[in-house]
Amino acid sequence: MHGHSDRESTRLLDQASGLGSHVHEGTRYPAGSTVLEAGCGVGAQTRLLARNSPQAHFVSIDISAESLAQAREQMSGEGLNNVTFRQADIGNLPFSPDTFDHVFVCFTLEHIPDPLHALCALKNVLRPGGTITVVEGDHGSALFYPETSAAHHVIDCLVSLQQQAGGNALIGRELGHLLADAGFMDIAISPRLIHASSAIPGSSEAVKRIFITMIEGVREPAIAGGLTDPKVWDQGIRDLYRTTEKDGMFCYTFFKTVGRKEG
Amino acid sequence: MHGHSDRESTRLLDQASGLGSHVHEGTRYPAGSTVLEAGCGVGAQTRLLARNSPQAHFVSIDISAESLAQAREQMSGEGLNNVTFRQADIGNLPFSPDTFDHVFVCFTLEHIPDPLHALCALKNVLRPGGTITVVEGDHGSALFYPETSAAHHVIDCLVSLQQQAGGNALIGRELGHLLADAGFMDIAISPRLIHASSAIPGSSEAVKRIFITMIEGVREPAIAGGLTDPKVWDQGIRDLYRTTEKDGMFCYTFFKTVGRKEG
Repeated sequence: MHGHSDRESTRLLDQASGLGSHVHEGTRYPAGSTVLEAGCGVGAQTRLLARNSPQAHFVSIDISAESLAQAREQMSGEGLNNVTFRQADIGNLPFSPDTFDHVFVCFTLEHIPDPLHALCALKNVLRPGGTITVVEGDHGSALFYPETSAAHHVIDCLVSLQQQAGGNALIGRELGHLLADAGFMDIAISPRLIHASSAIPGSSEAVKRIFITMIEGVREPAIAGGLTDPKVWDQGIRDLYRTTEKDGMFCYTFFKTVGRKEG
Repeated sequence: MHGHSDRESTRLLDQASGLGSHVHEGTRYPAGSTVLEAGCGVGAQTRLLARNSPQAHFVSIDISAESLAQAREQMSGEGLNNVTFRQADIGNLPFSPDTFDHVFVCFTLEHIPDPLHALCALKNVLRPGGTITVVEGDHGSALFYPETSAAHHVIDCLVSLQQQAGGNALIGRELGHLLADAGFMDIAISPRLIHASSAIPGSSEAVKRIFITMIEGVREPAIAGGLTDPKVWDQGIRDLYRTTEKDGMFCYTFFKTVGRKEG
């Protein structure tokens, strides 16, 4: 769904920089620990993980060779040497049970048809007592002013397309029960609300770069799939941009959730 | 809409206790200052205001003599002597211009047909340089798991009834533009997300007492007004209760907004 164009890669890297403090706050891994980053994509979170825990070692996997190539290229300029990239499928992990001290998953489960199966597979390669950290958004949390039905419509189109592709753009709210169903313990859910308005420098620019650009990216499939027509779509996009102007406001909530494997 | 039954009064007092830290965090008034609390209702916020700023003096007004009687009775047991209650209409304030050092408004604008007019009237009695603090919820921020259409339906019924009564249950997101339109400066919006799950002791009980009880309170008018039928309604209420059980979760966002009168 995401990450397969230059503009998209830029967006995802931007997203990681802008949201870094929300996603990574509280996530620091001890020296000598081995951490699996499952679904690293173009490496947007990888550099922040590696920078924040310079003495931990990260194994960052993705199913896409193309994304991994971009991730490797990006990391080569970072001066970090604590990351190993490897092509792998979360549903069929090439690791022995109890291999990793910790697992980190960000903006990945939203694209997976069976996130519970993925969590169980990740739990299997996590050592007893190790933690899993999962971060996902939830498009149902988007709250903005001015509110219009066209703006909600274009967001709903992305939700529908992601669902058709086997994903779930409303997965944030489900992380607690998914981790519980996968058998994790001591589950802590931490919703992180991002708020943008003209009073907060750079925040409206971030909404444009990260959220609105993501919605705009599905214009063609939404029209081709009969979910919308160009006129309504373009109005919805204009309405979303309007929320970033003068007296507009935009809120979005990510869900960061941590669980522990028994033992 | 709220506050006109014993059960409702209990709910509103509970709400203020439970949400106190979210609503009142950062709100402390200096010794000797005079603060107008506009729309004090049964005094749910009044005791927290008075306790948190014991050397400020509060003038707490409400349009309802019945609510004020309850507020007075409740405060008589608190041992606080820095509050004066007075019956008054926000749209027709019995105060001279520039009377108050600060104004505090909580869960009041949501019930007022013309909140902009109310804010202008409040600005008139505020001294130049004084602040206004407005706190309102936004039912569009309710995000929960499991999510069902029946649960959204009962919330939507309350939104519709409140709209029919001239209010706006989705006003939280509008506070920034309303304060700007009323001519306030240095507007700071602070969204405060409340999150409930079984992992947070007492949080699910608070959702039941505060939010679900409020929705349940409009069952009869919602049915009488043709917005719902008993079967769908009762399913929606059951679904809301389900979000407070085991792996359920519930989020809600309040908007605390502060502005300053020029001068």
